[in-house]
Amino acid sequence: MKSALSQLGRRTEPPPVSWLMSTSLARPRLISLAAGFTDNPTLPVDEARNLLIELLSDRSTGEAALQYGSTQGAPALIELTAARIQSLEQKAGNQSADKERFASRLVITNGSQQLLYLVTEVLCDPGDMVLLEDPTYFVYLGIVQSHGLHCRAVRLETDGIDISSLDKTLVHLKKTGALRRLKLLYLVTYHQNPTGTTTSFAKKQAALDMLRHYEKWAGHPIYLVEDAAYRELGFKEETEPSSLKMIEAAERVIYTGTYSKPFATGIRVGYGLLPKSVRDAVISVKGNHDFGTANLLQYLLARAISSGAYNAHLESVRLRYAEKADCMVSAIRTSFSDVVQLQIPNGGMYVWVALPKTVKTGFRSKFFARALDHDVLYVPGQICYAPDPTRLRPNHEMRLSYGNATPDEIKEGIARLGRVIGECLPEKPGRRLRLRPKASNNRPSSR
Amino acid sequence: MKSALSQLGRRTEPPPVSWLMSTSLARPRLISLAAGFTDNPTLPVDEARNLLIELLSDRSTGEAALQYGSTQGAPALIELTAARIQSLEQKAGNQSADKERFASRLVITNGSQQLLYLVTEVLCDPGDMVLLEDPTYFVYLGIVQSHGLHCRAVRLETDGIDISSLDKTLVHLKKTGALRRLKLLYLVTYHQNPTGTTTSFAKKQAALDMLRHYEKWAGHPIYLVEDAAYRELGFKEETEPSSLKMIEAAERVIYTGTYSKPFATGIRVGYGLLPKSVRDAVISVKGNHDFGTANLLQYLLARAISSGAYNAHLESVRLRYAEKADCMVSAIRTSFSDVVQLQIPNGGMYVWVALPKTVKTGFRSKFFARALDHDVLYVPGQICYAPDPTRLRPNHEMRLSYGNATPDEIKEGIARLGRVIGECLPEKPGRRLRLRPKASNNRPSSR
Repeated sequence: MKSALSQLGRRTEPPPVSWLMSTSLARPRLISLAAGFTDNPTLPVDEARNLLIELLSDRSTGEAALQYGSTQGAPALIELTAARIQSLEQKAGNQSADKERFASRLVITNGSQQLLYLVTEVLCDPGDMVLLEDPTYFVYLGIVQSHGLHCRAVRLETDGIDISSLDKTLVHLKKTGALRRLKLLYLVTYHQNPTGTTTSFAKKQAALDMLRHYEKWAGHPIYLVEDAAYRELGFKEETEPSSLKMIEAAERVIYTGTYSKPFATGIRVGYGLLPKSVRDAVISVKGNHDFGTANLLQYLLARAISSGAYNAHLESVRLRYAEKADCMVSAIRTSFSDVVQLQIPNGGMYVWVALPKTVKTGFRSKFFARALDHDVLYVPGQICYAPDPTRLRPNHEMRLSYGNATPDEIKEGIARLGRVIGECLPEKPGRRLRLRPKASNNRPSSR
Repeated sequence: MKSALSQLGRRTEPPPVSWLMSTSLARPRLISLAAGFTDNPTLPVDEARNLLIELLSDRSTGEAALQYGSTQGAPALIELTAARIQSLEQKAGNQSADKERFASRLVITNGSQQLLYLVTEVLCDPGDMVLLEDPTYFVYLGIVQSHGLHCRAVRLETDGIDISSLDKTLVHLKKTGALRRLKLLYLVTYHQNPTGTTTSFAKKQAALDMLRHYEKWAGHPIYLVEDAAYRELGFKEETEPSSLKMIEAAERVIYTGTYSKPFATGIRVGYGLLPKSVRDAVISVKGNHDFGTANLLQYLLARAISSGAYNAHLESVRLRYAEKADCMVSAIRTSFSDVVQLQIPNGGMYVWVALPKTVKTGFRSKFFARALDHDVLYVPGQICYAPDPTRLRPNHEMRLSYGNATPDEIKEGIARLGRVIGECLPEKPGRRLRLRPKASNNRPSSR
């Protein structure tokens, strides 16, 4: 007897993030520099308790928080989110940002992950195509794989995708007729997961201009999806406005952010700011998913933001991550900087490390197995590369997260990785590759 | 320029529940007997506050609650849920229920709604078919519509679906070859939404036996989806075991329940107990949806259950709903029982009312418009009938909810409906239809 699973049910692979998370939960000696868990000591336990006490000490706000809301989200949180995005834009020099217009295009979701899922669901049929950064956020690749989509990967530079590479890809898609299936370009624009790259506004504008140009052959809008999940986790004030600054934003930009990573990942609340037609479709489908994100979490976040607790907490989180990023970079410099290239982060949670190309780092590699033997876990770089058949996927990189590990664990984890490198590069390759600390030329040579 | 929406994106209609909820939120004078909001005065505001204080006063449990968990759910909540289902089964005479086996097949979701979505997503391709009760839970119909599925509706009797009608349908599907597209039979088995019907174990067993029989022509498993959302909301102890008692349960039964309606709808947590292959697919897809339900909500519920607060609260909720059900039934008897038939509930949140067949109650009917003029809202019966092309959808019924309205609002709402009936039946049809209060024959004559 055959399986009754749908095509999507058969196609969907277990996300590596589930495996990484459960591995690190199950092996207490393991130091995980892999899973995107956030920092434990800075989790706002006291703040959340105090906010919840306030919220649930008043019968009227308490009842509202414990009752159903509307599918698009709690009005108070939508307004606060719109004002928050406006303020981020203003700080980055976008004076035309208008919180009321933003509010009318917002939807609150279960983390930004659900927004990415919903957007892909309402825009893409199996066989459609998406463009992605190379490398990109690997959990989004899971959504793409599950929906049976084709991928083209656009080379990433230190300030965002290579626009000439985007053009080349679009020309090729136009020639083959594949533009008709192209729905979106997905960019993680601030302190990108996995490389830490921040995309310049100029590049975002150039990318959207180019998409608009090629729309006439597509016959439908091609959306720019800007995932700003790490926007608030910069180590210093951000200066790049988002794509929302563009004139065409209301028609073509899908912008998403999250409160989960900056505040608490156990509180899954994110949001999307969408063109109206896409937002309507997303809200209809979200109505079928869950009728709306849990009101208690939305009320808690609204109170955190309006009371100032969110911003105060964010300061401590930024400091903490900046410290841990330093700690990780220093440890790498001590342990094995002579054989790797690394990208020094200005925000977010990740250090991207390239080993010599001869050293494979994938799940099935000797290197990965040896790392597990030494009880240290990383994300193989290869899973961050989209399955684009027009190029080979590099397989010699690692995403190292300082999100969850303590400074001591970071030091010990990097030392363990150093031992793995020592074991896997027994022939002492010497100083074939040098650390290049300057931001302008610290990209791994493979990309 | 065409829309870029996917087939699903174009197909999905705004769920009526969103419209009903937003209408009742937006019109303060309106008495909504429509939306499935739960009772406000019994919402566990104090209980939730105390549980959250406990949870977040201990740094270690607090950090765990505010951190990511695993996609399938928090281990403590999975164990408590398994034990809870075992206990419900034992009370209903199913002594073979085994909480450890249950735990291995559980997944925690954002309300049972998400479980229904995920199950449909992993089992059904566009063009596939599902069998439903006639009438059924209309929000599930939204999921079905969105996925482009065909429906066949099986006549509902006072103790569950008519097995001979199920047989007739299956014979017909076998003849036409459509059995190959049939994936599941969806039943809301306890105090059904919308009719209040509880399905006997005998009928559930007969239905599964019949599905198994026809599987050989389907070529794949046909699942029995038992939605037990209202199981804990009976006004007296339940005596019917669930389908989990059946020998084939581990291979063919998808059982789902929720903590949201019994405890607090602002805390969206439900669960599914699934055959292993379906569970694996559901967890993979849920990983793409959201990586797992918010840990804070799961920890809160686990503590509510383990502390006894959940059960204590449940007692008060059951009493409250029993009282409000009585209140609604009495008000109907006073106002307009001479022209309607009603189904008296033994649990859940709904009274199902049939008007004379000449009185249309749909969204576009004069009756519905007059009701809105009188500031009272109900769910038109028609939207609870699947789009089964082999029969006409009745259009003279109403689902009335006593979930959210206070006793005074219920009385006033029913009085307003009585006035609408007076206006829409001006010719005084007299006592064409009588109330038949006995459970054994209180079904509207139309079904």
